[in-house]
Amino acid sequence: MLSAENRQIRLARRPVGEVGPEDWEHVTEPAAAPGEGRFAGRTRFLSLDPAMRGWLDDRPSYLPPVGLGEVMRAGSVVEITESNHPDFGIGDLVVGLFGVQEHVVSDGKGALRIDPAVAPPETYLGALGMPGMTAYFGLLDVGALKEGETVVVSGAAGAVGTMAGQIAKAKGCRVVGIAGGAEKCALLTGELGFDAAIDYRAENVRKALRTQAPDGIDVYFDNVGGEILDAALASLAMHARVVLCGAISQYNATAVQGPANYLSLLVRRARMEGFVVFDYAPRFKEAAREIGGWIADGRIKTLEHVVRGTVDDFPRTLQMLFRGENTGKLVLELV
Amino acid sequence: MLSAENRQIRLARRPVGEVGPEDWEHVTEPAAAPGEGRFAGRTRFLSLDPAMRGWLDDRPSYLPPVGLGEVMRAGSVVEITESNHPDFGIGDLVVGLFGVQEHVVSDGKGALRIDPAVAPPETYLGALGMPGMTAYFGLLDVGALKEGETVVVSGAAGAVGTMAGQIAKAKGCRVVGIAGGAEKCALLTGELGFDAAIDYRAENVRKALRTQAPDGIDVYFDNVGGEILDAALASLAMHARVVLCGAISQYNATAVQGPANYLSLLVRRARMEGFVVFDYAPRFKEAAREIGGWIADGRIKTLEHVVRGTVDDFPRTLQMLFRGENTGKLVLELV
Repeated sequence: MLSAENRQIRLARRPVGEVGPEDWEHVTEPAAAPGEGRFAGRTRFLSLDPAMRGWLDDRPSYLPPVGLGEVMRAGSVVEITESNHPDFGIGDLVVGLFGVQEHVVSDGKGALRIDPAVAPPETYLGALGMPGMTAYFGLLDVGALKEGETVVVSGAAGAVGTMAGQIAKAKGCRVVGIAGGAEKCALLTGELGFDAAIDYRAENVRKALRTQAPDGIDVYFDNVGGEILDAALASLAMHARVVLCGAISQYNATAVQGPANYLSLLVRRARMEGFVVFDYAPRFKEAAREIGGWIADGRIKTLEHVVRGTVDDFPRTLQMLFRGENTGKLVLELV
Repeated sequence: MLSAENRQIRLARRPVGEVGPEDWEHVTEPAAAPGEGRFAGRTRFLSLDPAMRGWLDDRPSYLPPVGLGEVMRAGSVVEITESNHPDFGIGDLVVGLFGVQEHVVSDGKGALRIDPAVAPPETYLGALGMPGMTAYFGLLDVGALKEGETVVVSGAAGAVGTMAGQIAKAKGCRVVGIAGGAEKCALLTGELGFDAAIDYRAENVRKALRTQAPDGIDVYFDNVGGEILDAALASLAMHARVVLCGAISQYNATAVQGPANYLSLLVRRARMEGFVVFDYAPRFKEAAREIGGWIADGRIKTLEHVVRGTVDDFPRTLQMLFRGENTGKLVLELV
């Protein structure tokens, strides 16, 4: 074992509104040894996801809430340091929901070995991980995207947004991204090849959408909710699909703002549909193969925002997501 | 010609909030004679529909707004009194969008001859008319209803609601209706055969839905919007379909209340979809045949709320819809 101690971040209380440092407990435990059929490892990269905010609330959702006093749930890349498991060996890198802690013991359930020769480990938390899968199935399956359509993505500079926009481009669509700030917008239309970007901090989104999607939006991929969802609803094309992926603008709100323009779904014969990426687990390999191909031929750029630190930096790193401070997939690399 | 005069109701101004008597102009014109290829007739029954409120606002929708000074758009049953049209003869009864006026001249476009031996004329404005078609295609096509599912209908005692609930029963579903008042609820569970009814004026709809749809709602057919839509969203089953038919609680509101629980669509992998019945015109005959069969074998009861009066009674009769004062299809019979 690399360390006799295991530093962990546990949920101390249920946040009201914005999640803050006072909602977490920093704990040090002895690092456990792996029993029969188990492996142990050290966490190399922690995933930070907007969905985490939802996991902290005590209400029924697609996953049970994180319990008070429990280690915070998180995806991570773990390097195996000790193994009594037939399928995993020392030095292997695996991804899984191992939680916010330095040291992991696992029976291997839900652990997936990754190949760092194909892509850097952190990419398996982004483009080749849940955000990539979310963008892929949200657009292609829920959104039923067709070549030549107009796609608008909100939260476009985030982990899922950067992937959704690039996948839509790879599928031959016109893509408009909505993001906060000139820098993010320049990235979208520059390196990432979006056709247009709207800076919601500087522009009237509703007007800008009318300019950038003059014939209406065929697929709106929503990561943010709130005013921007309403602006998109006002610009739908006939038979549009609104893909509900998330609502980061509402996660810290004590009262969710419902989309006042929802009746546009009626006038436009459109639908709004939600999904949960875990339902697509049987098809993850298929998606990873196609995304991997696009990465290999340069059509998709992977984008990780790596913060280096310790598990103790998890609380303040998580806040970056809700302040729009990350570009691409936010990852905490443990050093 | 029966009369040398044609009394009409024209739109005097665009209502703000609730539509009232001051928004209309009562006009008398000379009754026109039908030219070549046209027929003339007198209006027997006028249809009153919640959708009319939307037609009065000056914003893009599925039909152009009624223009200021124009005869109010309305479906009606007209008896032909004079004809220079090869397909229509004196005494024929036709349905069409002939407007709120006593006397009609038409080139026959959009006019459909009805058979009063099959059903009374007013039924062609209800169960065999647009409300019936709306319920049929909304449930079966948009809602993709399957036998054995749990269906909840709001505005259940209205023209569309009574049909939606009965069609769902005919298709072998458990049906819960939401309506205002004990009398309407008794009608639903009595004569109309609903499995349960919730009186939104007397009950907490959210709690009542949990009792009446303990495994969740598979199809929610929404005619009302507002709080009731939010209550239904909180009770969706996995893969539920929310059919947006209307939002009568919001039509007179100056600011629409968006559904704050819309993220339940995400957690439940559910969809919310709008539609416009006119899109299904090529399939109206197919629907009328099936509905006609259900009426004939007693599985569906037709229900019209007939007010007798003159076109001058149109404004106050229309208000009944928004005050929940009608049960079944609201019709103004001109006497």
